[in-house]
Amino acid sequence: MTKQAKIDLLETYLSLYIDHTTVLDSLDDPNSKYVVLDVRNAPAFVKKDQIKGAIAMPAKDLAGHLPELDHDKIYVVYDWTAGTTLGKAALLTLLSADFEAYELASALEGWKGMNLPTETIG
Amino acid sequence: MTKQAKIDLLETYLSLYIDHTTVLDSLDDPNSKYVVLDVRNAPAFVKKDQIKGAIAMPAKDLAGHLPELDHDKIYVVYDWTAGTTLGKAALLTLLSADFEAYELASALEGWKGMNLPTETIG
Amino acid sequence: MTKQAKIDLLETYLSLYIDHTTVLDSLDDPNSKYVVLDVRNAPAFVKKDQIKGAIAMPAKDLAGHLPELDHDKIYVVYDWTAGTTLGKAALLTLLSADFEAYELASALEGWKGMNLPTETIG
Repeated sequence: MTKQAKIDLLETYLSLYIDHTTVLDSLDDPNSKYVVLDVRNAPAFVKKDQIKGAIAMPAKDLAGHLPELDHDKIYVVYDWTAGTTLGKAALLTLLSADFEAYELASALEGWKGMNLPTETIG
Repeated sequence: MTKQAKIDLLETYLSLYIDHTTVLDSLDDPNSKYVVLDVRNAPAFVKKDQIKGAIAMPAKDLAGHLPELDHDKIYVVYDWTAGTTLGKAALLTLLSADFEAYELASALEGWKGMNLPTETIG
Repeated sequence: MTKQAKIDLLETYLSLYIDHTTVLDSLDDPNSKYVVLDVRNAPAFVKKDQIKGAIAMPAKDLAGHLPELDHDKIYVVYDWTAGTTLGKAALLTLLSADFEAYELASALEGWKGMNLPTETIG
């Protein structure tokens, strides 16, 4: 495998992600251009809590909700843990519909591991 | 990074995976075309349990067992958690030998998190 | 998606990783060409322990420490769990600066799950 092929893959892969610090800075800003979407498909009683201010938008329902989204916002999706496919599937739906969107690096697990703000669901 | 490069990577990446619902529907069907392979390399006492009906096929032994596999089946491999490389290594071996194969999205961790059927090993 | 596109992605992706066995064999060899870098960004009291013999080199500081690294060594980076982006970001920095480098497959979580040697930080 050539070094350039590795670098190309890493650059493209990493361009799909956004760091928690960017999201965190916008949590308390009512005019923030970032909107966090919780794309987990599990029912609310399984999810229990979510990133503070996130909007529940299960990946399985996302395509039907695209007309409600705002092309002037930047969407940040997250799943339970890093490395799963649900965030990537949601990201593909959003990018294909011409939204600016990223997956949250480290996902909910990393967010909670860093003791960042969450809120109870329900 | 262009949007198209991101979409191309996401589409190829996601095409490697199969959802748990597809696998679940076939668990109780004796004529199912899906065969689930547990490719974890750990010894049985560490693994303790597995997806119901899975066949233990450690990734390190897979190449030697290819002649026993059936080209009319669809193989679904899984490792402990999503994002590891063992499932991808097994998938590469299977695809390179012309089998139809996918990695199970969310892996064993996700399967158990959704309380889907497992069985004790041993 | 063509089978060849899947195989190409898997081959490139897997070429970024190195197996724990390679690292393990070199842990007690003072002349080993492998150097393990712990690229977690969390403070030491959160990290608590690390892979035995690893050097703490937070991903956020890595670019500034490149002049201290040795082009005759092979660097192995790891984050908390597999599938996160920190190891890939560190890898991109190292490869772009012409170092030979890999991410540790299964990350710290997998290393500890296999009961491989760690050491307390601090």
